[in-house]
Amino acid sequence: MNKISEAVISRLPRYHRYLGELLSQNVERVSSEELSRLMNVTASQIRQDFNNFGGFGQQGYGYNVQFLYDEIGKLLGLDKPHKMVIVGAGNLGRAIANYGNFKNRGFEITALFDENPALVGMKTAQGVVMDIESIFDYVKENQVDIVALCLPKEPATEIAEKLVECGIKAFWNFAHTDLKFADDVQVENVHLSESLMKLCYKIKENK
Amino acid sequence: MNKISEAVISRLPRYHRYLGELLSQNVERVSSEELSRLMNVTASQIRQDFNNFGGFGQQGYGYNVQFLYDEIGKLLGLDKPHKMVIVGAGNLGRAIANYGNFKNRGFEITALFDENPALVGMKTAQGVVMDIESIFDYVKENQVDIVALCLPKEPATEIAEKLVECGIKAFWNFAHTDLKFADDVQVENVHLSESLMKLCYKIKENK
Repeated sequence: MNKISEAVISRLPRYHRYLGELLSQNVERVSSEELSRLMNVTASQIRQDFNNFGGFGQQGYGYNVQFLYDEIGKLLGLDKPHKMVIVGAGNLGRAIANYGNFKNRGFEITALFDENPALVGMKTAQGVVMDIESIFDYVKENQVDIVALCLPKEPATEIAEKLVECGIKAFWNFAHTDLKFADDVQVENVHLSESLMKLCYKIKENK
Repeated sequence: MNKISEAVISRLPRYHRYLGELLSQNVERVSSEELSRLMNVTASQIRQDFNNFGGFGQQGYGYNVQFLYDEIGKLLGLDKPHKMVIVGAGNLGRAIANYGNFKNRGFEITALFDENPALVGMKTAQGVVMDIESIFDYVKENQVDIVALCLPKEPATEIAEKLVECGIKAFWNFAHTDLKFADDVQVENVHLSESLMKLCYKIKENK
């Protein structure tokens, strides 16, 4: 398979979400035109995106929703389970731990860690919050596919660097900095405030 | 000014963040090549992006960091204060309330609302959590520029529709659905799980 562009990859989760909604409404087939109206993108964009992956079936008959959902899920790696730990058990870490429907999608949050003694020992739906110092032994002794970083910039950077040395290969980073490591370490940097600024731009343009 | 593409707008907050970091390190001038290395994008992309807004000064001498930071801030509307209320005072709502450095950027969170009696009355740094039913009177009596929706899909949609009738023109939506209203109502839909799925894609490709 050719290297797929970042822009196409970025759109796959949204397709997956809309197809999941169609499935939950028992819709069996959907045309690119119908998907286009639902998702507010052009049908030609949808067909182009899907052509990167062989097209997913005859367009004249529409797409089989279950097949398309499963195939995009496989592309995203969602057919495999992922074990995740969360560093930072404050509001954001606990919000992330409880966000969405992780279990149904194969994500298992196996532990939360924090440096704050007031949070260590706290019971959560994902178990008791552990001391941050124990994370390095934890990731050596347990399978951890993803580390979610829900703490400020400086400690996040320091802890991530140590975790890379321990063999961690993927970070979901909410700290306000773009983490970057060697090419074999994957990072998704989430900057919540960027979407707020985009919103402000639109508010201003709207006036 | 011509209509600026969504992709360019999406990159402005990141420029603003990096320029803010340079300012905090007392850097006075920066070339597109230096910015390019810092931000891991091409210098030609940076120049192209900036040319949408007149170029921001002579490239041969580099950009004046303070000027560029202020100008991009103005483009984003950050030179004006924004009053925001948060609907949903669970972990996510409280995380959003405390996230980033809102005050320094002109965002003031004036109220939090929730439907859960266990949360109503709770003291937070942004004031006491109010009953969700009181939000409609609140937005009629107070200036509210942005409503952040930090609650599940169904109540978020219902409350947002009522708030649009009350005159609200901008939503920062964390509910797991793409809200869409008339063209004069701006929405930024944040789907945290999409970045997690992108990360899974990269993990899979990396193997």
